[in-house]
Amino acid sequence: MAKPEPTLMDKIVSLCKRRGFVFPASEIYGGIGNTYDYGPLGVELIRRVKEAWWGATVTEREDVVGLDSAIIQNPQTWITSGHVGGFTDPMVDCKKCKGRFRADKLEDARCPEKPSKRPGECDGELTEPREFNLMFKTTIGPVEETGSTAYLRPETAQGIFLNFKNVLESARAKPPFGIAQIGKSFRNEITPGNFVFRTREFEQAEMEFFVPPAEEQQWFDFWVKERFDWYVRHGIDPAKLRLRVHEDKELAHYSTATSDIEYEYPFGWGELEGIACRTDFDLKRHSEASGTDLLFFDPQTKEHYTPFVIEPAGGINRMALTFLIDAYEEQQLEKDTRVVLHLHPSIAPITVAVLPLVKKEGMPEKAREIGAMLRRARYSTSYDEKAAIGRRYRRQDEAGTPFCVTIDGETLTENTVTLRHRDSMEQERVPVAELRGRIDAAIEAWKRPGA
Amino acid sequence: MAKPEPTLMDKIVSLCKRRGFVFPASEIYGGIGNTYDYGPLGVELIRRVKEAWWGATVTEREDVVGLDSAIIQNPQTWITSGHVGGFTDPMVDCKKCKGRFRADKLEDARCPEKPSKRPGECDGELTEPREFNLMFKTTIGPVEETGSTAYLRPETAQGIFLNFKNVLESARAKPPFGIAQIGKSFRNEITPGNFVFRTREFEQAEMEFFVPPAEEQQWFDFWVKERFDWYVRHGIDPAKLRLRVHEDKELAHYSTATSDIEYEYPFGWGELEGIACRTDFDLKRHSEASGTDLLFFDPQTKEHYTPFVIEPAGGINRMALTFLIDAYEEQQLEKDTRVVLHLHPSIAPITVAVLPLVKKEGMPEKAREIGAMLRRARYSTSYDEKAAIGRRYRRQDEAGTPFCVTIDGETLTENTVTLRHRDSMEQERVPVAELRGRIDAAIEAWKRPGA
Repeated sequence: MAKPEPTLMDKIVSLCKRRGFVFPASEIYGGIGNTYDYGPLGVELIRRVKEAWWGATVTEREDVVGLDSAIIQNPQTWITSGHVGGFTDPMVDCKKCKGRFRADKLEDARCPEKPSKRPGECDGELTEPREFNLMFKTTIGPVEETGSTAYLRPETAQGIFLNFKNVLESARAKPPFGIAQIGKSFRNEITPGNFVFRTREFEQAEMEFFVPPAEEQQWFDFWVKERFDWYVRHGIDPAKLRLRVHEDKELAHYSTATSDIEYEYPFGWGELEGIACRTDFDLKRHSEASGTDLLFFDPQTKEHYTPFVIEPAGGINRMALTFLIDAYEEQQLEKDTRVVLHLHPSIAPITVAVLPLVKKEGMPEKAREIGAMLRRARYSTSYDEKAAIGRRYRRQDEAGTPFCVTIDGETLTENTVTLRHRDSMEQERVPVAELRGRIDAAIEAWKRPGA
Repeated sequence: MAKPEPTLMDKIVSLCKRRGFVFPASEIYGGIGNTYDYGPLGVELIRRVKEAWWGATVTEREDVVGLDSAIIQNPQTWITSGHVGGFTDPMVDCKKCKGRFRADKLEDARCPEKPSKRPGECDGELTEPREFNLMFKTTIGPVEETGSTAYLRPETAQGIFLNFKNVLESARAKPPFGIAQIGKSFRNEITPGNFVFRTREFEQAEMEFFVPPAEEQQWFDFWVKERFDWYVRHGIDPAKLRLRVHEDKELAHYSTATSDIEYEYPFGWGELEGIACRTDFDLKRHSEASGTDLLFFDPQTKEHYTPFVIEPAGGINRMALTFLIDAYEEQQLEKDTRVVLHLHPSIAPITVAVLPLVKKEGMPEKAREIGAMLRRARYSTSYDEKAAIGRRYRRQDEAGTPFCVTIDGETLTENTVTLRHRDSMEQERVPVAELRGRIDAAIEAWKRPGA
């Protein structure tokens, strides 16, 4: 029987391991559920995605400030927010094999004892559905016996609401203004999957934008468009993106409107990011539960009011996966096939690879000198002297490196290098003194191939 | 009775809250132990400290790559590393008030019921000391009953050892080389304290540098010096820093040598960062426990060997606190006192504040235009039009902002601005077109006042 063709996802997973983007976590101990670690290229990819998000959402805006709140907050937070009571999935257990499954997704589930079969087909009886809370619990010191139960946050948003008053006062902010946060969240998902698309531990990027109630719609429209455009600006194919407006019946209890930005993944259309109108729900609930007024005093109307909230919320890991999938191409060349990641230069883990043509005649020394110059200017660089130059170019193509700088005999006499462009594979001769300017110009002018 | 003078730490804590560096976490719910959230200035400070560490440790070096491993790993990790068995503090409990205290630090502890008294002085009897593990426990899905206990990592280092082989292969690295990681770690400390100096949840910056065993000493010396110099390069007063070599009896079981970089805090000399020789302890233990060889094959000698490890390990939050304390000055001026943070420009949360002299005559519009130009160039900026200009300068001094750009009548006619320098309070007139160059030059030339 012929071996089945690997799917696009198989190829991405394999590339990620081979090139050091993503490794299965605790692999030497057989892994741990659907958990992943980011390798040398992956951590730089994640850093770029965060930086692009923070740059567009905080640094370049006058009306948004940042926050970094703790993962473990006072547990009252999650009672007030509704997570203790309602952040649940309906689960059924198999009485025989002890497998646990989402009752609403039984058709996708498999028996852990007989993976070719559906839940219950191990001849076990399934229990009635019960609600299973998705928050990870832990216990904090110092008095273990009296049970100081705490939760790992399931979202970063509540940390923002808790600090509304402190930020308002210290930053002297007034609506419309936003508070943005990037940080780890944890959800005890029963069915994580699709590689890093859904994992129990993930890095969230959320922003709560506080507005006068009358401006809710205009700011909702603004942020839906801004977030959609952000993906396109960073190289995602717009033909693979769509907006999906939630129907009334699927809206969360705190939301009057939500739109998802969806991407066409190899496994179908899926949520890349959600933008929600959260109204004044959270601030009002925390006001009531804490006895602290979370209001804004408008000096013009002399009135106190609770701002409404627009929330763009995405996951950095899912964004990174989307950039990888969207950038992946197997290109048929005359003699062979090259695998290339057409990542936007602002997202690519390595910006410039520095390659001595041969490992002698002073070329490695010169290459290291040029590499050091680029690193001091805070370009992310890589040095590679192993294997034939063509093979090294292909390695960099797989890493998504937009530029290769090759040091050869002429470099030593003329002080020029070859600058090779990833997408077109074109090469040009550039004086070393002009290298940075040329790279910066090419970054500025970058466009998706075919766009 | 006279109110006691606030201590330097009191002043720092107060400044941090007032200006939005650090807030008590979950404050509206009465807080949660010794946990803190970072406000708009604090999150930027933390970002700068991370960026400075990552830049010096990874980006600017050819021999170090990064990693980002998961917080929750396979629990076997912590059995192998010795944390399950040995990462403990000796604790005593009060049978009456249920307080729990470190047996080796009873003299610093206070009874939770009678905070003016020592443990046991509530007339309770103290138990014999018992070992209390400092790892936070949790349970992961999907089968709750069978008890899939997991731990929040107490250090980022083990995630690096787990990935040694994957990184070696994908990055084609060879010793000497390092793997660096920044990420949250968690320790269920019984006595956290001194503000953000010691907290249960903290951001670690660790690097495992793998070397041929014979090169252990030379690389240990290198990293001790490099890490010490890093603090000085980023503005810390060298007179407040010292090295402390661990005596044999205080070395961890895996270490043959450890040196601490200590800082003279307001509460005394304390560890800022530790640099340890970890030998081949961790790689060997994980090799044995997992059955996976964690060896390097040297193609020259044709031998496999286990590299030795040098580990610089610090906490980002503690570094940030140290930068704040070290930068703090109350300066007696002719008419008043100014509070100023002399932060290195690479560490300061806001690089440039943009201030229209008055809120009319087109100055706010022009200021916003200049602010937008600076933000697009990725300077961290702040816009402030509220209050008299002198008061706004003082607000920026407290935030540690090295440069203020003031827009006045002449800006509108001559296209020049006033550039005000934080440390000297000197002002100079600069054409808008030359503003970025002038700021960059001043950053480059920056020195600690008095240095």
